[in-house]
Amino acid sequence: MTLEYKMKRIKSGIPGFDDLIQGGFPENTTVLVAGGTGTGKTTFGLQFIYKGAEEYGEPGVFVTLEERAKDIRREVKSFGWDFKALENKGLIAIIDGVSSAVGLPSEEKFALEEKFNIDNFLRYIYRVVKSINAKRLVIDSIPSLAFRLEDERQIREVLLKLNTILLEMGVTTILTTEAPDPQAGKISRYGIEEYISRGLVLLDLQERNIELKRYLLIRKMRETKHSMRKYPFEITNTGIVVYPSGEIY
Amino acid sequence: MTLEYKMKRIKSGIPGFDDLIQGGFPENTTVLVAGGTGTGKTTFGLQFIYKGAEEYGEPGVFVTLEERAKDIRREVKSFGWDFKALENKGLIAIIDGVSSAVGLPSEEKFALEEKFNIDNFLRYIYRVVKSINAKRLVIDSIPSLAFRLEDERQIREVLLKLNTILLEMGVTTILTTEAPDPQAGKISRYGIEEYISRGLVLLDLQERNIELKRYLLIRKMRETKHSMRKYPFEITNTGIVVYPSGEIY
Amino acid sequence: MTLEYKMKRIKSGIPGFDDLIQGGFPENTTVLVAGGTGTGKTTFGLQFIYKGAEEYGEPGVFVTLEERAKDIRREVKSFGWDFKALENKGLIAIIDGVSSAVGLPSEEKFALEEKFNIDNFLRYIYRVVKSINAKRLVIDSIPSLAFRLEDERQIREVLLKLNTILLEMGVTTILTTEAPDPQAGKISRYGIEEYISRGLVLLDLQERNIELKRYLLIRKMRETKHSMRKYPFEITNTGIVVYPSGEIY
Amino acid sequence: MTLEYKMKRIKSGIPGFDDLIQGGFPENTTVLVAGGTGTGKTTFGLQFIYKGAEEYGEPGVFVTLEERAKDIRREVKSFGWDFKALENKGLIAIIDGVSSAVGLPSEEKFALEEKFNIDNFLRYIYRVVKSINAKRLVIDSIPSLAFRLEDERQIREVLLKLNTILLEMGVTTILTTEAPDPQAGKISRYGIEEYISRGLVLLDLQERNIELKRYLLIRKMRETKHSMRKYPFEITNTGIVVYPSGEIY
Amino acid sequence: MTLEYKMKRIKSGIPGFDDLIQGGFPENTTVLVAGGTGTGKTTFGLQFIYKGAEEYGEPGVFVTLEERAKDIRREVKSFGWDFKALENKGLIAIIDGVSSAVGLPSEEKFALEEKFNIDNFLRYIYRVVKSINAKRLVIDSIPSLAFRLEDERQIREVLLKLNTILLEMGVTTILTTEAPDPQAGKISRYGIEEYISRGLVLLDLQERNIELKRYLLIRKMRETKHSMRKYPFEITNTGIVVYPSGEIY
Amino acid sequence: MTLEYKMKRIKSGIPGFDDLIQGGFPENTTVLVAGGTGTGKTTFGLQFIYKGAEEYGEPGVFVTLEERAKDIRREVKSFGWDFKALENKGLIAIIDGVSSAVGLPSEEKFALEEKFNIDNFLRYIYRVVKSINAKRLVIDSIPSLAFRLEDERQIREVLLKLNTILLEMGVTTILTTEAPDPQAGKISRYGIEEYISRGLVLLDLQERNIELKRYLLIRKMRETKHSMRKYPFEITNTGIVVYPSGEIY
Repeated sequence: MTLEYKMKRIKSGIPGFDDLIQGGFPENTTVLVAGGTGTGKTTFGLQFIYKGAEEYGEPGVFVTLEERAKDIRREVKSFGWDFKALENKGLIAIIDGVSSAVGLPSEEKFALEEKFNIDNFLRYIYRVVKSINAKRLVIDSIPSLAFRLEDERQIREVLLKLNTILLEMGVTTILTTEAPDPQAGKISRYGIEEYISRGLVLLDLQERNIELKRYLLIRKMRETKHSMRKYPFEITNTGIVVYPSGEIY
Repeated sequence: MTLEYKMKRIKSGIPGFDDLIQGGFPENTTVLVAGGTGTGKTTFGLQFIYKGAEEYGEPGVFVTLEERAKDIRREVKSFGWDFKALENKGLIAIIDGVSSAVGLPSEEKFALEEKFNIDNFLRYIYRVVKSINAKRLVIDSIPSLAFRLEDERQIREVLLKLNTILLEMGVTTILTTEAPDPQAGKISRYGIEEYISRGLVLLDLQERNIELKRYLLIRKMRETKHSMRKYPFEITNTGIVVYPSGEIY
Repeated sequence: MTLEYKMKRIKSGIPGFDDLIQGGFPENTTVLVAGGTGTGKTTFGLQFIYKGAEEYGEPGVFVTLEERAKDIRREVKSFGWDFKALENKGLIAIIDGVSSAVGLPSEEKFALEEKFNIDNFLRYIYRVVKSINAKRLVIDSIPSLAFRLEDERQIREVLLKLNTILLEMGVTTILTTEAPDPQAGKISRYGIEEYISRGLVLLDLQERNIELKRYLLIRKMRETKHSMRKYPFEITNTGIVVYPSGEIY
Repeated sequence: MTLEYKMKRIKSGIPGFDDLIQGGFPENTTVLVAGGTGTGKTTFGLQFIYKGAEEYGEPGVFVTLEERAKDIRREVKSFGWDFKALENKGLIAIIDGVSSAVGLPSEEKFALEEKFNIDNFLRYIYRVVKSINAKRLVIDSIPSLAFRLEDERQIREVLLKLNTILLEMGVTTILTTEAPDPQAGKISRYGIEEYISRGLVLLDLQERNIELKRYLLIRKMRETKHSMRKYPFEITNTGIVVYPSGEIY
Repeated sequence: MTLEYKMKRIKSGIPGFDDLIQGGFPENTTVLVAGGTGTGKTTFGLQFIYKGAEEYGEPGVFVTLEERAKDIRREVKSFGWDFKALENKGLIAIIDGVSSAVGLPSEEKFALEEKFNIDNFLRYIYRVVKSINAKRLVIDSIPSLAFRLEDERQIREVLLKLNTILLEMGVTTILTTEAPDPQAGKISRYGIEEYISRGLVLLDLQERNIELKRYLLIRKMRETKHSMRKYPFEITNTGIVVYPSGEIY
Repeated sequence: MTLEYKMKRIKSGIPGFDDLIQGGFPENTTVLVAGGTGTGKTTFGLQFIYKGAEEYGEPGVFVTLEERAKDIRREVKSFGWDFKALENKGLIAIIDGVSSAVGLPSEEKFALEEKFNIDNFLRYIYRVVKSINAKRLVIDSIPSLAFRLEDERQIREVLLKLNTILLEMGVTTILTTEAPDPQAGKISRYGIEEYISRGLVLLDLQERNIELKRYLLIRKMRETKHSMRKYPFEITNTGIVVYPSGEIY
């Protein structure tokens, strides 16, 4: 029995990465990017949005729950990325989820209300996604989302809902989460994010002599044949670059 | 003293696997398939249902508590499996346990009600099993079931009840569960699933150089003489294949 | 000073085992059999009852809190054991502690009531023990008993009571318990079962290359001179066999 | 400056042990004997009482909170010890702390009341100690004492009180406690017993090849110069024997 | 596409350190300095303030929540640093957060009120920062701040607020935190400080033979290309010195 | 810039120790002495007080919260130390914090009241310190102090207060605390004592072959240049002796 089967692939915008996953993320999937502090999770998400808009003309929404939009814009300039320009062209929208949480007024076009509620949150994202016809979405990060809930244990329910609703929106999504100790098997803060998402990219560090080296591992990617090797990557002055033929040891 | 003793074996539908357990699962047993994220638990269960229907003409029910039925149907197309066709023939039924939980209407024929209750849950499964005269059942997954309970600690009671009622239904069942760290002995999320089930198949990963390799271990199978070696397996583009004579190191 | 001292030994019914403990368990003692899932705890207890009745003519009671009596009878047929025949002869009694707990009617002669209470539980066991004049008793398992208590922390009190009352009954008893990680020193679920019992047999697995090998260790046996070596054992198609001169590595 | 300093030493009654601690325990001290299950803690305490009475004519009280007096008397017969004879001579008293706790009537001369209270407990011990003019005391065990408290966390307060009052009574005391994992530093169940006692003897097991070997370590002994070597010991058919010149590896 | 991008760098005042981070901390950033006890966190912060004022003429505020200002002034004299002189010149301000917490009157110019409140705390810091036109700020330490909260779990919310408000103030800030076990991945007391801050410097110890050696690792520094090598450092009698070309092993 | 800087050093009274810390503890500092059971913490504190009075004529106060004053006096005789003689000369005061806690009347000159309160506790210490014009103080131990609090979690607040008030008193203080597992980084019971104190001396044991060897490590000492080597020490019959040139392996 043969079954005609074709799938659109969404380019990650990260040099070297798409070769590892048959050309890109499966369209309309949700991928978890997990890593310890300083491993490059946020950069991974920003590059996905920026390159998607700049190189592939695909609009994207970045929901920031840890840093304000204006701080992000400033920081990415070190990679030569001009978010403001693409925002002005309607190719990128940043949703500021920080200002309200700390009781500051937001100067942003898109900002969450002070009183957090998961349904309102999803409705707001939906509206922004539609307003720029976004194909890409990043929520940075799951723990920052969880901490806004009345009870962090609701996070499992929220993730299930998030995962399902995002599929309905038709966007390809990256969720970031903190990985306390990937090499000891603790690859997510709540120990459940990885089970609910359909793809999982781990960013981690390996000590070689007295130096930490970055590597990346694709632990899961539904509908995709992928290697489970650890690939070295670097954060260069133009963003993340993966070396599919490099060695981390 | 001799005792006449014959047992029907249920084919797993996974190439290479049945050779390890005297030809198949003991009929009317309940087997736990445990593994970390991305190890292939869900695929194992889907293949058990799909191949059971397609190759052996045995109807099967798949209860999905993590992904919607329609997402599952789409994903398995990458293995060349056409669930819809077999559903139309009355050989497969998928029970959608996700839509109601996230507050979306379900377009599915079989779907759980919003208000979860273990007795209603079992009654509903029973009805669907009877309606297609199912011989096989998969519940994906135990933790997703537990999180729908008012108190996750009720899971022990629920599993005991589940295990007993399923024997009454006459189906051969696969339950999936998350294994936080199999090599450190944590082979199930609640630390009790493995004690209550009558069979236990572990799916795990082993690092070789800088690459993770999949392997499978049959830790327990009542009424069955089985090896306790670790066998390599792969997720190919036609599904899971086990290599009984391969080495994982 | 010399003291005349003789002790009756109760045969385990497990080939190779009694040689390790001066010919058998001390009469009227309580022994804990602890192990992870799939290590053979339940089989150990069933063989103790079955062989006691069949080979030594000593009646025995098996209290099952995890599987129904009828499922047990079916499963042991794979070892060539016909429990029903010996039950009919009044040599074995199985107390069904599962049906009531899951809300099903029991077709068994001996079954616990729905509302669990430790004193009623002990009284019921006492009555069944007397009714067949049992010399042997197995309770499978401690965690299943604990989970029926209102508060699992009462288990210490229950075990103390159990241990004392069982001595009064004059039976030789095996209690089974789950051992989360014996090699890391966690040899019982509650960390107290081993302190309250007078004997402790550990069943565990050791990885050799990529295969798990079974072994057994007698950690404690009051009134008995015993080795503390690890002995290999197997679950053959006639039940458990211990190899006192074998090596596990 | 010279200070006249003499201390009476209390013989342990354990061959080979007193050589390690300048001839015996300092008189009127309290020593903790800690170990995992089956390491010989209870035997250590029983031998201290029995040999004290038999060889040195020093009366002793044994408080048993885990096994009934009559079970203890039976078990020690395997070492050739006749407790009853020495009890009849007024050299040994066993306080039964088990019967009341499990709701059985005690046939013992000395037995605790059902309602446990630390002050009554100490008063009762005091009375028995005085009635036979005891020089030695054993309480077996601290965790069994703790579990009789309304809140186990009171154990620190109880131990402080116990330690002080016992000094007032003028007895040399052994307290036993469970050591979950001595080699990982967990040398007592509550993690505080060792800090409050003035002496600490650890009984543990070391694996050599596939056999566990017993060894003993004196971690602390106030007013005493002691080695901190690990010494092998055995439980022979005449009780515990320590080998000060043996090797455990 | 080229983007003009310039960033002012703030000198750390620690010999050898600025070479590792492109000349200094990015202006107006917040850096976490984490380490176990005795690793030099407080000294790192004090040197940042002292050298900033003395060598670069940049005023700085030091908020001390663990030691009183006068004890700090005394201690740093061992490095030859005269804080009082620079305080008199309006180049340094120390905010005493200890006296009020322990119920003592403060003789300091700048001191927190007794009743702690995060908003008042930030307002007070803001006022002091403005009063000396500070460019640098140190808060020593996060755990001491957390323990003043009604519920320590509020610390995540507080850190998010702190991080955002400090950016508004225009200061470059060092926050110190306790790292329970950096080599086992526990690099901060609450496990979240590192995710919310934009830079992370780890101070730790490595045992070489029987001596502990100090080393430093820059785990994260936004907008900065930095090495992830471990660099040795020492606390000399003139303060911390980093050896960029030294080896810790 | 040169800064005139002189500091008085307080002799520890422990042979070999002062050489490691530039001649003694910085005057008017608070040092934590942490170690497991039997490592010599209490002896370290007693020697500091005894030798301070006997050799240097500096009066000292010893606050005992674990053993009664009279038991301490008896025990130290094994080191040839006559506390009573120096107490009579007004050079030593022992504050009995045990009798009241266990409900016994104290025969001591200095004793705490039954109802514990941190402010009263500090006031009482202050009065005794002044009455003998003490220069030295030992509080043995922090956990015993914590357990007298209504809620042990108040210990952080108490330590902060203690640390500050002791500086006001002008004494040089040793606080002892229990270290559960120093080699695994757990160097204090509450995980905070080391952060609040200004000096930290670790006493620990290292296994060499089958013998535990004592060693000492100075992890922190403000205003002092100190080695971070591990030095062997012994508890001889004249007290603790450190061997600055010895090896522990």
